[in-house]
Amino acid sequence: MIRTIGRTSNQEIINDFQLEDIKEKMFEWYWVDIGEPTKEEEILLSSFFHFHPLAIEDCLFRLQRPKVDHYDGHSFFVLHTFNEETLEAEELNLFVGENFVVTFHFPPMHELDQARERIVENTKWWNRGAMHTAYHIVDKVVDAYFPIVYKIEDYLNDIEDKLSSDVYHLSLDQVFDLRSDLLRLRRTILPMRDLIYRVLNSERVNLQQTEKAYFGDIYDHLLKLGDMVESNRELTADIRDSQMSINSSQMNRIMMILTTVSTVFIPLTFIAGVYGMNFTNMPELEWRYSYFIVLGIMLIIAVSMLAWFKYKGWFNLFKN
Amino acid sequence: MIRTIGRTSNQEIINDFQLEDIKEKMFEWYWVDIGEPTKEEEILLSSFFHFHPLAIEDCLFRLQRPKVDHYDGHSFFVLHTFNEETLEAEELNLFVGENFVVTFHFPPMHELDQARERIVENTKWWNRGAMHTAYHIVDKVVDAYFPIVYKIEDYLNDIEDKLSSDVYHLSLDQVFDLRSDLLRLRRTILPMRDLIYRVLNSERVNLQQTEKAYFGDIYDHLLKLGDMVESNRELTADIRDSQMSINSSQMNRIMMILTTVSTVFIPLTFIAGVYGMNFTNMPELEWRYSYFIVLGIMLIIAVSMLAWFKYKGWFNLFKN
Amino acid sequence: MIRTIGRTSNQEIINDFQLEDIKEKMFEWYWVDIGEPTKEEEILLSSFFHFHPLAIEDCLFRLQRPKVDHYDGHSFFVLHTFNEETLEAEELNLFVGENFVVTFHFPPMHELDQARERIVENTKWWNRGAMHTAYHIVDKVVDAYFPIVYKIEDYLNDIEDKLSSDVYHLSLDQVFDLRSDLLRLRRTILPMRDLIYRVLNSERVNLQQTEKAYFGDIYDHLLKLGDMVESNRELTADIRDSQMSINSSQMNRIMMILTTVSTVFIPLTFIAGVYGMNFTNMPELEWRYSYFIVLGIMLIIAVSMLAWFKYKGWFNLFKN
Amino acid sequence: MIRTIGRTSNQEIINDFQLEDIKEKMFEWYWVDIGEPTKEEEILLSSFFHFHPLAIEDCLFRLQRPKVDHYDGHSFFVLHTFNEETLEAEELNLFVGENFVVTFHFPPMHELDQARERIVENTKWWNRGAMHTAYHIVDKVVDAYFPIVYKIEDYLNDIEDKLSSDVYHLSLDQVFDLRSDLLRLRRTILPMRDLIYRVLNSERVNLQQTEKAYFGDIYDHLLKLGDMVESNRELTADIRDSQMSINSSQMNRIMMILTTVSTVFIPLTFIAGVYGMNFTNMPELEWRYSYFIVLGIMLIIAVSMLAWFKYKGWFNLFKN
Amino acid sequence: MIRTIGRTSNQEIINDFQLEDIKEKMFEWYWVDIGEPTKEEEILLSSFFHFHPLAIEDCLFRLQRPKVDHYDGHSFFVLHTFNEETLEAEELNLFVGENFVVTFHFPPMHELDQARERIVENTKWWNRGAMHTAYHIVDKVVDAYFPIVYKIEDYLNDIEDKLSSDVYHLSLDQVFDLRSDLLRLRRTILPMRDLIYRVLNSERVNLQQTEKAYFGDIYDHLLKLGDMVESNRELTADIRDSQMSINSSQMNRIMMILTTVSTVFIPLTFIAGVYGMNFTNMPELEWRYSYFIVLGIMLIIAVSMLAWFKYKGWFNLFKN
Ligand SMILES: [Mg+2]
Ligand SMILES: [Mg+2]
Ligand SMILES: [Mg+2]
Ligand SMILES: [Mg+2]
Ligand SMILES: [Mg+2]
Ligand SMILES: [Mg+2]
Ligand SMILES: [Mg+2]
Ligand SMILES: [Mg+2]
Ligand SMILES: [Mg+2]
Ligand SMILES: [Mg+2]
Ligand SMILES: [Mg+2]
Ligand SMILES: [Mg+2]
Ligand SMILES: [Mg+2]
Ligand SMILES: [Mg+2]
Ligand SMILES: [Mg+2]
Ligand SMILES: [Mg+2]
Ligand SMILES: [Mg+2]
Ligand SMILES: [Mg+2]
Ligand SMILES: [Mg+2]
Ligand SMILES: [Mg+2]
Ligand SMILES: [Mg+2]
Ligand SMILES: [Mg+2]
Ligand SMILES: [Mg+2]
Ligand SMILES: [Mg+2]
Ligand SMILES: [Mg+2]
Ligand SMILES: [Mg+2]
Ligand SMILES: [Mg+2]
Ligand SMILES: [Mg+2]
Ligand SMILES: [Mg+2]
Ligand SMILES: [Mg+2]
Ligand SMILES: [Mg+2]
Repeated sequence: MIRTIGRTSNQEIINDFQLEDIKEKMFEWYWVDIGEPTKEEEILLSSFFHFHPLAIEDCLFRLQRPKVDHYDGHSFFVLHTFNEETLEAEELNLFVGENFVVTFHFPPMHELDQARERIVENTKWWNRGAMHTAYHIVDKVVDAYFPIVYKIEDYLNDIEDKLSSDVYHLSLDQVFDLRSDLLRLRRTILPMRDLIYRVLNSERVNLQQTEKAYFGDIYDHLLKLGDMVESNRELTADIRDSQMSINSSQMNRIMMILTTVSTVFIPLTFIAGVYGMNFTNMPELEWRYSYFIVLGIMLIIAVSMLAWFKYKGWFNLFKN
Repeated sequence: MIRTIGRTSNQEIINDFQLEDIKEKMFEWYWVDIGEPTKEEEILLSSFFHFHPLAIEDCLFRLQRPKVDHYDGHSFFVLHTFNEETLEAEELNLFVGENFVVTFHFPPMHELDQARERIVENTKWWNRGAMHTAYHIVDKVVDAYFPIVYKIEDYLNDIEDKLSSDVYHLSLDQVFDLRSDLLRLRRTILPMRDLIYRVLNSERVNLQQTEKAYFGDIYDHLLKLGDMVESNRELTADIRDSQMSINSSQMNRIMMILTTVSTVFIPLTFIAGVYGMNFTNMPELEWRYSYFIVLGIMLIIAVSMLAWFKYKGWFNLFKN
Repeated sequence: MIRTIGRTSNQEIINDFQLEDIKEKMFEWYWVDIGEPTKEEEILLSSFFHFHPLAIEDCLFRLQRPKVDHYDGHSFFVLHTFNEETLEAEELNLFVGENFVVTFHFPPMHELDQARERIVENTKWWNRGAMHTAYHIVDKVVDAYFPIVYKIEDYLNDIEDKLSSDVYHLSLDQVFDLRSDLLRLRRTILPMRDLIYRVLNSERVNLQQTEKAYFGDIYDHLLKLGDMVESNRELTADIRDSQMSINSSQMNRIMMILTTVSTVFIPLTFIAGVYGMNFTNMPELEWRYSYFIVLGIMLIIAVSMLAWFKYKGWFNLFKN
Repeated sequence: MIRTIGRTSNQEIINDFQLEDIKEKMFEWYWVDIGEPTKEEEILLSSFFHFHPLAIEDCLFRLQRPKVDHYDGHSFFVLHTFNEETLEAEELNLFVGENFVVTFHFPPMHELDQARERIVENTKWWNRGAMHTAYHIVDKVVDAYFPIVYKIEDYLNDIEDKLSSDVYHLSLDQVFDLRSDLLRLRRTILPMRDLIYRVLNSERVNLQQTEKAYFGDIYDHLLKLGDMVESNRELTADIRDSQMSINSSQMNRIMMILTTVSTVFIPLTFIAGVYGMNFTNMPELEWRYSYFIVLGIMLIIAVSMLAWFKYKGWFNLFKN
Repeated sequence: MIRTIGRTSNQEIINDFQLEDIKEKMFEWYWVDIGEPTKEEEILLSSFFHFHPLAIEDCLFRLQRPKVDHYDGHSFFVLHTFNEETLEAEELNLFVGENFVVTFHFPPMHELDQARERIVENTKWWNRGAMHTAYHIVDKVVDAYFPIVYKIEDYLNDIEDKLSSDVYHLSLDQVFDLRSDLLRLRRTILPMRDLIYRVLNSERVNLQQTEKAYFGDIYDHLLKLGDMVESNRELTADIRDSQMSINSSQMNRIMMILTTVSTVFIPLTFIAGVYGMNFTNMPELEWRYSYFIVLGIMLIIAVSMLAWFKYKGWFNLFKN
């Protein structure tokens, strides 16, 4: 599906014109968006726009890393958006020339609709040309990263708050999922950051001073997103280690209680076993109070063992 | 709430003048602080001061990373202070022009009161202009980081000293909390450090040599804070590992004692069980001294097991 | 075995000509591939082509790191291909001069056949000369890395999806194998990346602007491969840690169930032991309902212990 | 306490002259050391020497990071020495001007006595001026780091040698102490290294070529100290991991032996328990050889269990 | 012991001449090797060669880090060789001037004999001068690193292959030893690499283009050695983690089998205990088939427990 927008030399914004209208050169700037393309639409990249074959190859074949390439007459950007459900990166290809922007992408991308809306709304920016249109697109693409990262961060803050509470038990599987999501996000955000840095500092992208401030604003966002991803990954590592140690100490505490019970009863059971033997000649058996004495001895043994454990501090060892 | 201070061309300091007075241009330099702003006060940023829309957006919307941007007629700083209780970063926006400083922040910030006091006190600095006023503000902001980091460092030194003592048991949850606090601090301190570095080395911030020494002093502080945060994070990792190994070896020592008890008694209990069987034909049962012999054998077994354990060095294995 | 291809001054492509034909200088450019060389063919490097002795030494002796060296009249590249089965790196030596490419390698390499095919097919590129032929070779070498890395990545994604499922048990040995494969891949991919970077930015390799775009395309691939290898290594570490914690918590859950069973029965067995003693004077033994009372007490003890465990939350502790 | 030394214009070294003598300008160079200063002596920094207020602030207040600042007429160094007992860093402030060195420090520092001695001894260096005096001081400060780092390194080498021996049991607490000491040392050594690097490469410190060799020699030492600290920290991590795994495998071996004993006896005890039951109708009890048969069965069970364990390789599992 | 070699102005190589012959200046270049020096030979460094005192100090006192210093009339290199048995670094000091090389070392070094041999053999290189002689020495020093690193790498590859096999049990102590050896190697190889890099890129070392290729060849080797050391250290970490998890899961499997045995028998033993009690009124005891019924119940309990374990999947849990 192809969507178009452009500004004519008589200061009007025209929506959804035909590609043929471009040839009449009546546009100050225009943006052609090729989304979910048919085979015929794919071919337009070379037949109609005459982009560089390497750029077209990057559009059509597997996911590229975010980057910018400069060819005669156009710069070629590869940007990433995220599929909000799977957090898989998706590729948005963007060509910028003197007076045009062309975007090309296989999955539908709502970021582009938002950019189009903002362009239509801000009449005062209409005279800024193609690079400013490109700015709106990149800005919306990067803005869409924030809810994803904030969601992870909020979730981690939640976990962090609950972590010390005794009743909360964190599944380490969740933490692993978060870590792998952050890894995936990082693989897009860091190259996007470096890409915008190169755009800001390259002599080949002829950014005007006014545009620089706007791309600088995007760079800020990417710096912050990069920081957040990195420190959230460190936080997940801390949470995982902390939770594993909590689990293991809780587990140990229980094992110790259970083992203590066994340890107290085993010698007593042995004594009972001794007096359950059937030897003919076991003089104690006949004594009057021997049964009660043995019970008393058993009690003394049990109590002394517990006292010794308490003296050794084993009971408060794993209290918290 | 708006607070103002400024120096008139006739060498006086005036406090809390009206914004309208500025227009009459009687000030060598002035500082306007907009704190906990009302909606009307927020609007002043654009309607009265005419700051760049991107800078105003950064003031009004979510927390930015510490940074400096240069626009026509003013530089725009985003600084972080810390909420001393939650250790959450809070945003202080600072605009510096030729002869003015404007600060804008949502939460109240005592650092600004301290900066104001110092400005009033140091009469000899009054002629240094707006950038020196900005220095006082940034200096107070960074000075306020120290008590927070020192508190964590002192606490860690405390823990470190107690760690080897036998009676001290550290909750790993505390260590995790410290680590996450240090992570949070780092997210502010490192970008603040880089920000001051850029201020010192940028050609756009026209720092005089005298001012450079003062901003260099702040940079020293941030370098030291950065070092402290990093090495304290490493220390917490060491403490955590050390404590986990202490816990686990203490736990193991106890389990081993308990298990040893069981192991000694289990064969003896078996023997008792054998002579508790009710077979008609068990010749040993009738022998005169068999009971005592069996008791003796049990004793010998128990003693030999303990002796073997001792010989194998199991008893001193987990001594400390 | 020697294979040749070249373009004569009258615009033809000639395949498999004799080395002697070169001397007659009828070639615009030519490529000589020396694969699985005999001793005589090895000697050609010095006797026929007169390459630098250090470059020849690098061809003949042990595996070099990917690199480029510049000598009078030729640049010398060491490239790595992978043995697809063992993932061992194999060395491809490549000499480029004004009008020639010479490749030298001990194992057979199908990447070279593919490069040759593409050269023959793309008639429009025939006039681009030796450096473009070199591009085709390097491109095919790097393209062949992708299936290897993608295979590992797909496998890891598979593991990641199954990881939280209860019935899936991952052998940590597999993860270790993947990690060591990734280590091996990294040892080739990172130096290859740096090598292409140097080629792109060196003044000594006189790349034309058109060729730069092509080598830049290879550089993109290597950047992406480098990212994939690094983040997949991090992912394996996460998977390993996650799986170890899953294993250990499953194991702990089972141990706890088993230990709980023991703990409940051990005091009961002790009581049974007590009433199995053979003392003459054990008044309870004669009472009418004492057996049933004791059975009841045993039941009460067992139930209270289980109730206490439940109250303490031990049963749901390791549920998930 | 103030100590002075200087060289007069008539080529003499004068010790412990009065500060007032300086004003008469009879010195080619002089060094004033202010150690453990009284309040009056502290004031000299501003009243007598007129150093920059920021430098004086750094002298008087809390520990600074090692650094160099350049002010009009003097450079200001902050150096660290170590308290040899606590390994705490201590601050040595050093001012260098055209013809003077001033040192200021709160704790006593024997390094300064050594520097003074060397200056007095080396008559041929007397004409080199203030910067060479500063070199002697910095050199002695850095030389004093070596015994501290060597002591840790020797201790670690010792541990490493003993580690595999069976009788040696390392307290992990010691390793933790070493790690935290190394962390503390690193916090001084790395900034000291960077400081000397800046001195060597700065245009502001007007080092002559001859002096450069001498400061370069200090830089060598700091590079080596930095390497040693870093690799010793890695070594401690390795030792800790190795020791933990040795501990845990020793512990496991013992637990397994103990558990094996229990496992062999528990079924036997059960059998004994069965024939200890008091049912009236238990035909086996009356048979002539049933007791001996049961004993034999018990023996067979025990032996088969042990044989199965041996067949499964459990006995040699934890041998080493 | 002093060994000499040099080339006279009439194109001859002279071996083992006297130091006094040098003064007559008849040499185009010469190399003096001072190995295992006597006190008198040590003094030659200053009395005969007049090297810089800082360089002489570095020769005579403790082990330096690999480095290069430039003094008037000579460059001074500190190189490391390895003691092949202990893997301890040993210091080789090398002075290079316009027409001389002087080496100085305390332990004997076979690398120098090899360098001398190669010099004598390669008559065509005789006219290249002192720097080429230095190249031969450095080359032989670095070549000698390879067998050491290859030995470790081969050993690790061996371990890696055996790791998944069930019968192979790796001592973690060995892995620790390898790690500490790699640490030691790294402490030499990385500074050696940086040293050669500085030599290649420094303006002070006046390397001719031809020599650059040769030193570049050494740099290649050091890059590769550095890579190998780093990735082998990562591999040892992986092996250690993998082995620890294998050990622990094997151990856990065994513990679980043992615990399962106990868990099955403990309730049965309890039941036997109950019917071993000596109460007068235990009606079941008198019933005709109660003994057989109880045996049957015991069997049912045991079988149901095992069935439940199997249903829960515990038996295949730790199969692999
Ligand atoms: Mg694509
Ligand atoms: Mg935005
Ligand atoms: Mg949040
Ligand atoms: Mg907490
Ligand atoms: Mg996910
Ligand atoms: Mg912004
Ligand atoms: Mg804001
Ligand atoms: Mg301050
Ligand atoms: Mg402190
Ligand atoms: Mg301690
Ligand atoms: Mg907190
Ligand atoms: Mg300061
Ligand atoms: Mg080779
Ligand atoms: Mg390709
Ligand atoms: Mg995939
Ligand atoms: Mg999962
Ligand atoms: Mg493999
Ligand atoms: Mg491409
Ligand atoms: Mg101080
Ligand atoms: Mg020294
Ligand atoms: Mg040593
Ligand atoms: Mg060892
Ligand atoms: Mg200490
Ligand atoms: Mg030295
Ligand atoms: Mg030496
Ligand atoms: Mg070599
Ligand atoms: Mg090998
Ligand atoms: Mg394997
Ligand atoms: Mg060793
Ligand atoms: Mg080579
Ligand atoms: Mg355990």
